[in-house]
Amino acid sequence: MPAGGPEQGTTGALAPGQGTRGGVLAQYFPILEWGRGYNSSILTSDLVAAVIVTIMLIPQSLAYALLAGLPPVVGLYASILPLIAYAIFGTSRTLAVGPVAVLSLMTASAAGAVAAQGTELYLEAAMTLAALSGVMLAILGLLRLGFLANLLSHPVISGFITASGLLIATSQIKHILGTSAGGDNWPDMLGSLAASIGGINLWTLAVGIPATAFLFWVRKGLKPLLVRIGLPPRLADIGAKGGPVIAVAATILAAIIFDLGARGVNLVGAIPQGLPPFALPSTDLALIEQLWVPALLISIIGFVESVSVAQTLAAKRRQRIAPDQELIGLGASNIASAFSGGYPVTGGFARSAVNFDAGAQTPAAGAYTAMGIALATLFLTPLLFSLPIATLAATIIVAVLSLVDLKTPRLLWRYSKADFAAHMATIVVTLLVGVEMGVIAGVAVGLLLYLWRASRPHAAIVGRVPETEHFRNVERHKVFTVPHVLSIRIDESLTYLNARWLEEYVLERVAEQPEVRHVILMCSAVNEIDASGLESIEAINHRLGDAGIGLHLSEVKGPVMDRLLRTPFVEELNGRVFLSQNRAFHELSMNGGSEAVPPADMPRGMI
Amino acid sequence: MPAGGPEQGTTGALAPGQGTRGGVLAQYFPILEWGRGYNSSILTSDLVAAVIVTIMLIPQSLAYALLAGLPPVVGLYASILPLIAYAIFGTSRTLAVGPVAVLSLMTASAAGAVAAQGTELYLEAAMTLAALSGVMLAILGLLRLGFLANLLSHPVISGFITASGLLIATSQIKHILGTSAGGDNWPDMLGSLAASIGGINLWTLAVGIPATAFLFWVRKGLKPLLVRIGLPPRLADIGAKGGPVIAVAATILAAIIFDLGARGVNLVGAIPQGLPPFALPSTDLALIEQLWVPALLISIIGFVESVSVAQTLAAKRRQRIAPDQELIGLGASNIASAFSGGYPVTGGFARSAVNFDAGAQTPAAGAYTAMGIALATLFLTPLLFSLPIATLAATIIVAVLSLVDLKTPRLLWRYSKADFAAHMATIVVTLLVGVEMGVIAGVAVGLLLYLWRASRPHAAIVGRVPETEHFRNVERHKVFTVPHVLSIRIDESLTYLNARWLEEYVLERVAEQPEVRHVILMCSAVNEIDASGLESIEAINHRLGDAGIGLHLSEVKGPVMDRLLRTPFVEELNGRVFLSQNRAFHELSMNGGSEAVPPADMPRGMI
Repeated sequence: MPAGGPEQGTTGALAPGQGTRGGVLAQYFPILEWGRGYNSSILTSDLVAAVIVTIMLIPQSLAYALLAGLPPVVGLYASILPLIAYAIFGTSRTLAVGPVAVLSLMTASAAGAVAAQGTELYLEAAMTLAALSGVMLAILGLLRLGFLANLLSHPVISGFITASGLLIATSQIKHILGTSAGGDNWPDMLGSLAASIGGINLWTLAVGIPATAFLFWVRKGLKPLLVRIGLPPRLADIGAKGGPVIAVAATILAAIIFDLGARGVNLVGAIPQGLPPFALPSTDLALIEQLWVPALLISIIGFVESVSVAQTLAAKRRQRIAPDQELIGLGASNIASAFSGGYPVTGGFARSAVNFDAGAQTPAAGAYTAMGIALATLFLTPLLFSLPIATLAATIIVAVLSLVDLKTPRLLWRYSKADFAAHMATIVVTLLVGVEMGVIAGVAVGLLLYLWRASRPHAAIVGRVPETEHFRNVERHKVFTVPHVLSIRIDESLTYLNARWLEEYVLERVAEQPEVRHVILMCSAVNEIDASGLESIEAINHRLGDAGIGLHLSEVKGPVMDRLLRTPFVEELNGRVFLSQNRAFHELSMNGGSEAVPPADMPRGMI
Repeated sequence: MPAGGPEQGTTGALAPGQGTRGGVLAQYFPILEWGRGYNSSILTSDLVAAVIVTIMLIPQSLAYALLAGLPPVVGLYASILPLIAYAIFGTSRTLAVGPVAVLSLMTASAAGAVAAQGTELYLEAAMTLAALSGVMLAILGLLRLGFLANLLSHPVISGFITASGLLIATSQIKHILGTSAGGDNWPDMLGSLAASIGGINLWTLAVGIPATAFLFWVRKGLKPLLVRIGLPPRLADIGAKGGPVIAVAATILAAIIFDLGARGVNLVGAIPQGLPPFALPSTDLALIEQLWVPALLISIIGFVESVSVAQTLAAKRRQRIAPDQELIGLGASNIASAFSGGYPVTGGFARSAVNFDAGAQTPAAGAYTAMGIALATLFLTPLLFSLPIATLAATIIVAVLSLVDLKTPRLLWRYSKADFAAHMATIVVTLLVGVEMGVIAGVAVGLLLYLWRASRPHAAIVGRVPETEHFRNVERHKVFTVPHVLSIRIDESLTYLNARWLEEYVLERVAEQPEVRHVILMCSAVNEIDASGLESIEAINHRLGDAGIGLHLSEVKGPVMDRLLRTPFVEELNGRVFLSQNRAFHELSMNGGSEAVPPADMPRGMI
């Protein structure tokens, strides 16, 4: 939306959470920031967006609750208080929080491991997941640990989303067929579906297949149609989002007319009317012990998904979000969800984009949406009695298949084999074992590959480019060297992950070149030397010293040298520290190579 | 030992495992390499070293078995076959493997968690630990995963060794007092000791205290004494290592003369004579499930300790070791230990240093030591019947207190607060919870701090140094900038750990400077861009594009550019790729700032 960009941006170009204007209080309560400039024109924009999002959210909330294995009304509960909590604590102006597909699947998997669907305990487990996840997110935010979400690389996230999309779509086939089947991964799901194939209900099929087909057409064909009949593209886009509402209305009518409930078609049935109940989340320690790992994974996946949506939208208006405060905002939302009979929530892509496109200006739009859902919960639920479950399943299937991304693996294969490996490992483990192990495997593979690379940093033996003071890799350039001086350029900071490598690399190069009497480590690219790196250089120094070889450093950066000088290292060095590689090479190569370690009276340390 | 260095080094300057001379077979069986040059002069050196190491090893093996909660003979068993296996597969010429203090403590902790000391199951657990650890080490070696040992930073290892030394010394106090006490950590040990204080046996104390005092004196005073009576320092050093043998002989005599066994002093008692039994390690899956985590920790700690000893000694003679083959060598040793009634072993520092100083030339010295121990097991064990346990405890206490290192925390505090934190966390958790959690906590804290730093790499806004083509940090130098061009130099490779940071950093800088129309990312220090990094630059490109800002790159390295060209990124860039930062700045700052995104007909992509 470049058109609306810069103008709107001027009202909110600086992020809340910066402390530049509102101080600490406004950092933790962004509402104090945007609330001050609230006026009737912003109110109108927010209200319009809220109405549109509310209409879109009602069928979606019901469907995601179904996906989570919960009563449909729980989806509505999870779309009221959490939005208000986010409006107070969140930093994105346009993020719309609520139940989303992937977290619903993860909730089903985690709660299903402790209780059977439909039981009291299952419901309690879902609420406990929201409570745990809320507390974890808030703690991560207060401790400013948002960087831990970095452990999920883009290839892992996209692999996880693709595999989740496939799992979710597969899990809904039973509702279209009218059979019952279960499973947390593909082998179980497909086996269970195959076993249930005899129980297909044709009436259910007669609702499910047309609904799915219609919704697919809505995604592809409704917008062009609306444009053709004269709607501006942006409105047509929003209008097309109303497709599920049409499907819901049409199938409710069909269910009533043909009395589908009596013909074995599962209907939503009676939804308790009224506002969400105030509920205390469980304090059962055994339950918490079983659920904390999935809750942590739900927190991180939810955070990563939400932050990337929020960042994308904020950037379009030159606004900013504060990721650590976002953790607090999402934490508050999930705690609110747990206390009002809901389940884990986060910022969803589709609804946030609709909210943004519909012109929402502030998080107040989310609060108005919450009121809209609350009104629906109070008055509309009787209308949904005859809604076929198959319709909700169709909306889920159509929504999640857009998550399946077949382009990424090809791009990754061409761009980076390591990233491709992490991506495929995530997909395969998620499909074959389940969502939790999928995320864990993705993180583990990514970290393993990273550590592997970090343990083999780039380094090169360098020589002097003739007629210059420049030193370049001997393998790539015609350069001048002498056999008794070995110059090694290290292209990375020295940390514990590569400290052992450094020892091996240097000692190996020395072993290969028996004439060496001086080793120069050229440190121009070394931004940091941690304690392990220091110990490794000390060990190299002692080992080379024992073998009668001098160790010298050149081009050490100022801050690195300052810290080295606080240790006995420079004094103990069997050689010198040179400001420039050129000077080091010049002096040491002059030095004929006849003497081994410099004699004790030669000036040591900094020159 | 600079004196003996280079000359000796010429026989083995190139590492086995390099495949340069012996091929693949010699890589996996280093014995094929050094065995070819074996002659009678090397034989003599190896035999002398073997005799000295054998004498030193007998009391040590008994003592460490005691520490591990095992019958003393198990220590001897673990010092026979493992040495022969290492001689075949290991790459260090002088490493002496066998039971060591820290692994003995870890074995006691792990086996104690599944069975009571003295039971059949406890013994089986110890052998299973050796078997599991052997298999794990061998697999890590075959898969070349030795780099995983990097996860243990120097500060974590030294913290772990210090805390283990304190735990081990504390665990032996009961043997000096003649009481019985237990516990895996300080609170338990000290509580248990305090409760047992009433049961002190004065006869035991009368053996234990003088033995401890004598051994302390041996460490400090015997070597100077031997030097004074005319021994060369190196021989005096080796002679001082015989102290424990004197203590053993003296207290055996005392026990016989004063009939200490009848006075409540615990004696070693009957040791089964004969060679180690061939034993099949357990295949009990439940046992394996309980022991695999401690076995993994034992493997890694053992490997790290052994490799650092081996590297130190190898470097003194300009030899090299091959760390991945070392994993195989230690794996074979532990498997051999498991099959001969032993428990986890690794290369020990003290015995390897003695082996080295005594002149061992090849791993054959280890095989001869194994034969020495085997002879002792066959014929000497009856002599040890009256050896007081208190004497063994005294040798352990004196040996391990030298592991306690009080200097490192001070040095770390001055050098690096992050490393200090990892060091102290390891010490505190090891002492208060136990050895396994100590290692895990140390790795976790180290990794957390690393990831935190990796997620905030260095970057700077740069401007042109007047009259030059150089660009420097605006905060440190007087440089020239223009308000509509923002030049950002990134000082690190772009990986998934800092990809999110990059988005935030760039968008924040842009939000701070509303006049910006062009952003230049100066990539001179970017060695790699992984898929996540690429996605982040793409996201930055789209977001800046939406806000009417152009994104440009400068000084992209060749290999990085090659990979970028395999993606649609360069085509989609709302700006250009410049070879030099100077040219980028020159052209874009000329460009007045009036127009936002370059018009479509401007040449895009590489120029």
